[in-house]
Amino acid sequence: MTETPQSPARPEGAGRHRFESGLDRTPANYVPLTPASLLARAAAAVPGRVAVIDGDRRLTYADLYVRCRRLASALAARGVGTLDTVAILAPNVTEMIEAHFAVPMLGAVLNPLNTRLDPATIAFSLAHGDARVLIVEAECAPLAARALADLAQPVLVVAIGETGLDGAIPYEALLEAGDPDHAWAGPADEWQSLCLLYTSGTTGDPKGAVYSHRGAYLQALGNAVTFGLTAESVYLWTLPMFHCSGWSYPWASVAACATQVCLRKVEPSAIFRLIARHGVTHLCGAPIVLSMLAHAPASDRTAFPQRVRCAVGGAAPSSTIIRTMEELGFQVTHLYGATESYGPATVCLAQPDWAELSDADRYARMARQGVPLATLEAVAVVDPAGGEPVPRDGAAVGEIVLRGNTVMKGYLGNPDATERALDGGWYRTGDLAVWHPDGSVEIKDRAKDIIISGGENISSLEVEEVLMRHPAVMLAAVVARPDATWGESPCAFLEMKPGAMIPSDQEVIAFCRDRLARFKVPKTVVFGALPKTSTGKIQKFVLRDQARAL
Amino acid sequence: MTETPQSPARPEGAGRHRFESGLDRTPANYVPLTPASLLARAAAAVPGRVAVIDGDRRLTYADLYVRCRRLASALAARGVGTLDTVAILAPNVTEMIEAHFAVPMLGAVLNPLNTRLDPATIAFSLAHGDARVLIVEAECAPLAARALADLAQPVLVVAIGETGLDGAIPYEALLEAGDPDHAWAGPADEWQSLCLLYTSGTTGDPKGAVYSHRGAYLQALGNAVTFGLTAESVYLWTLPMFHCSGWSYPWASVAACATQVCLRKVEPSAIFRLIARHGVTHLCGAPIVLSMLAHAPASDRTAFPQRVRCAVGGAAPSSTIIRTMEELGFQVTHLYGATESYGPATVCLAQPDWAELSDADRYARMARQGVPLATLEAVAVVDPAGGEPVPRDGAAVGEIVLRGNTVMKGYLGNPDATERALDGGWYRTGDLAVWHPDGSVEIKDRAKDIIISGGENISSLEVEEVLMRHPAVMLAAVVARPDATWGESPCAFLEMKPGAMIPSDQEVIAFCRDRLARFKVPKTVVFGALPKTSTGKIQKFVLRDQARAL
Repeated sequence: MTETPQSPARPEGAGRHRFESGLDRTPANYVPLTPASLLARAAAAVPGRVAVIDGDRRLTYADLYVRCRRLASALAARGVGTLDTVAILAPNVTEMIEAHFAVPMLGAVLNPLNTRLDPATIAFSLAHGDARVLIVEAECAPLAARALADLAQPVLVVAIGETGLDGAIPYEALLEAGDPDHAWAGPADEWQSLCLLYTSGTTGDPKGAVYSHRGAYLQALGNAVTFGLTAESVYLWTLPMFHCSGWSYPWASVAACATQVCLRKVEPSAIFRLIARHGVTHLCGAPIVLSMLAHAPASDRTAFPQRVRCAVGGAAPSSTIIRTMEELGFQVTHLYGATESYGPATVCLAQPDWAELSDADRYARMARQGVPLATLEAVAVVDPAGGEPVPRDGAAVGEIVLRGNTVMKGYLGNPDATERALDGGWYRTGDLAVWHPDGSVEIKDRAKDIIISGGENISSLEVEEVLMRHPAVMLAAVVARPDATWGESPCAFLEMKPGAMIPSDQEVIAFCRDRLARFKVPKTVVFGALPKTSTGKIQKFVLRDQARAL
Repeated sequence: MTETPQSPARPEGAGRHRFESGLDRTPANYVPLTPASLLARAAAAVPGRVAVIDGDRRLTYADLYVRCRRLASALAARGVGTLDTVAILAPNVTEMIEAHFAVPMLGAVLNPLNTRLDPATIAFSLAHGDARVLIVEAECAPLAARALADLAQPVLVVAIGETGLDGAIPYEALLEAGDPDHAWAGPADEWQSLCLLYTSGTTGDPKGAVYSHRGAYLQALGNAVTFGLTAESVYLWTLPMFHCSGWSYPWASVAACATQVCLRKVEPSAIFRLIARHGVTHLCGAPIVLSMLAHAPASDRTAFPQRVRCAVGGAAPSSTIIRTMEELGFQVTHLYGATESYGPATVCLAQPDWAELSDADRYARMARQGVPLATLEAVAVVDPAGGEPVPRDGAAVGEIVLRGNTVMKGYLGNPDATERALDGGWYRTGDLAVWHPDGSVEIKDRAKDIIISGGENISSLEVEEVLMRHPAVMLAAVVARPDATWGESPCAFLEMKPGAMIPSDQEVIAFCRDRLARFKVPKTVVFGALPKTSTGKIQKFVLRDQARAL
């Protein structure tokens, strides 16, 4: 038998597999997704456009790309490589944005740390994440010094500004030694780990949520599409970048070729001034940020002509806040997400029938957590026991679950927690909600007992553990109390040991302050017997009602 | 030795592989990318929003999703499955949009056919692509009937409207039999083939460019981000959807939850009326579309208050056209791409220094092909021989090459052509350009001798082959002649056989009309000896100069 050569102009005729033959991935048509590509593309597309404004400093996209390549090559020269952890402890400064691109270029893992945490928790994260490098901004130097003192492993410290830290390499000197033309390779596999973000859970130790290059790239595009970021957008950093990598906005802004405006501290007068001065079009934040803007005295306000899109997450914005913000020129969008979902997972998109609603009804709709972001595969509300979807009737309560490429890979070194979180093909948020007929979800309770204060998650269990260390305390329960300024604040209910001397509120608060990050310290303390179930479990829902009534 | 159990709260400490252990892809955090997901998400996010306007017909996103699920399930019930080809021959109607989602849901391959082609080319495509199904809209029925008559293989014909085709199943009856809750699975591998698009090359037979689910999903997001499509956008279909799957806009519009307005025929009065009536914000088209709008008599124009973003590709828009369009309320963006790049690959983004330019200089900049789209990895201009980048000096000419996830998988059943096209890690466009210092590319010539007339590619070789069949013709060369209406038109240069009777222009044109699609027929015929090189090759550059001077 002789083989008949195939005519190249005709398909091979072997049935359905014609579409799988001679059509393989090649370097021309397949590139592993990575957010680092977004910066390379922006630098190629709009090299002269301003990428970052930070005080008097301006970086064009060409500048930013060069600085990131320098940083990546300089870290590589110091031995930092694939899957090494680079931690960073900094406010919203240029270098924080740079780290979000340079570290992925290296194939290393960025670990942004919450600057509001206590030294012991920072030290725990550095040890757990096995950080090789810690980049510290001057403002965070005292915190870093105390955390490093607790740490056994050697860490290369890089200092932004004057930190006074022993043996620290100045950031700019490091960059100077780097190669501006560094040919970074990107990950060979887009599933490779990219970021490590510690989140307060209900158990004592923080859990490290791990992001992939693929997820970050897709979330960047999803954010840009969902929130309408374009090359004309100017994004103001009112959200801490250490929160879920700034909800993925460092990457989303660059995907859109937008300008990012840095901001160290959430201060209304500065925010209004920057909005007016730089033509800000977008900002994000916790309700506390909106609340501060809405309640700012007239002397702190600067008028601006544009409409500013303002995405708010962490808790539903109140109708008063929304109304005031709209009057001031903001367009408020409520969203919902978690560290485990790269920031925003759902967004409360305006629905066609909103046009017919009264303002009050519209504000109530805007308080819903909403519908899936462009790149999330699906959201559902399910029966926590059986996993079946609850009816879409706005009444049946179930657990919000999420599914898609923008759900974390899992928790670092914690397969049990990962398995619990990603159980049954969904990420289980632990948040209890109803599902409305129009598909939007609305949170009714937090199954995990998390208190959200000023946009920060506080684990009630962590605070309870500290309170239980007080010599007079027998039993402690901490719940959220509504707070005009912070959204929620921790409220402690204490049952004292029999015969123990009851301390004052101030004494308990001082005790906590020595042992907890400042924002986790209870603002209210109530003494008395705790309500319990017949099996001895504390009835937190009773305490929540009491806290609300205080 | 006993094994020490690992503490779940601590990483395993085995060095760098901590980030690769217990962090695998699961159904919760990994879903193969497919544009079908974008529709499922839009239907979940804005079920009540209008997805499609087609004459008096309105489909909400909930309606569109149900109709697509019905179509997918009905085709599945007819035996259409993974990697089967579903061809469609239709103008820009609702069903064309539906096919772009329903067929991917099935895991089948959509093959949109150019309704302007001749029956023999349509028949070639159906045979080459091994189409199992052909969906035909009434307007295309005569063309389909002639193509089907030439076809050996059995094809299931589905009729939109009254086609009179033998044995055709009415589209609406098919949908009626489908399952509105069809649980489509999507592809198991996002690299799976999704679309087949035949393109006119320089060789005789059309080549079938194959798209993947991954590429289409990413191009959809890239288009949405680059052109600023949002949930408030209204996209008008002035571009034929059979062109590179409508430059991926059926998917991009849905990714953004925008509204698509169908349009059967490019007619200025209808376009102005639809823009005003539906608040159109975006449209795309060849320069001929802009030209028709710019030159429409005042009686055909309807005023509209909004600014309409108008993306133009295929050839650079002239300064006169841009000026007139801007005066009429359009914002023109020039882009460049190919069937092989899912439509747009580069876009001429406004650069900061444009603000200082005169209108004339700005229009000249806008005529450049521009810089990479958000989701393209890179564009370069290289020496066609060695593959080295040319200097970015705006003078050195090289070939435009593209690289990224939005480059086709290859040509169906044509490994040689695929290898040539995806040579050396880049897609070689065959277009010759200069590279400017700001990173933008500007086409200077078309290496492939393609003539672009009214946005349609015409292979000069195909026309030459027909001309050579004329009994009196010895040698034929066809080049582009600048054309006020069509951008370019084919101009034929004929060297006659010695002693042959020279036919009239009209006779040659009639001869071609019998054998070619109407738009490919030469508009000008010139008789005489052809200029040749010493080795006997025809000097087309000389003929191009002659054609320009005619």
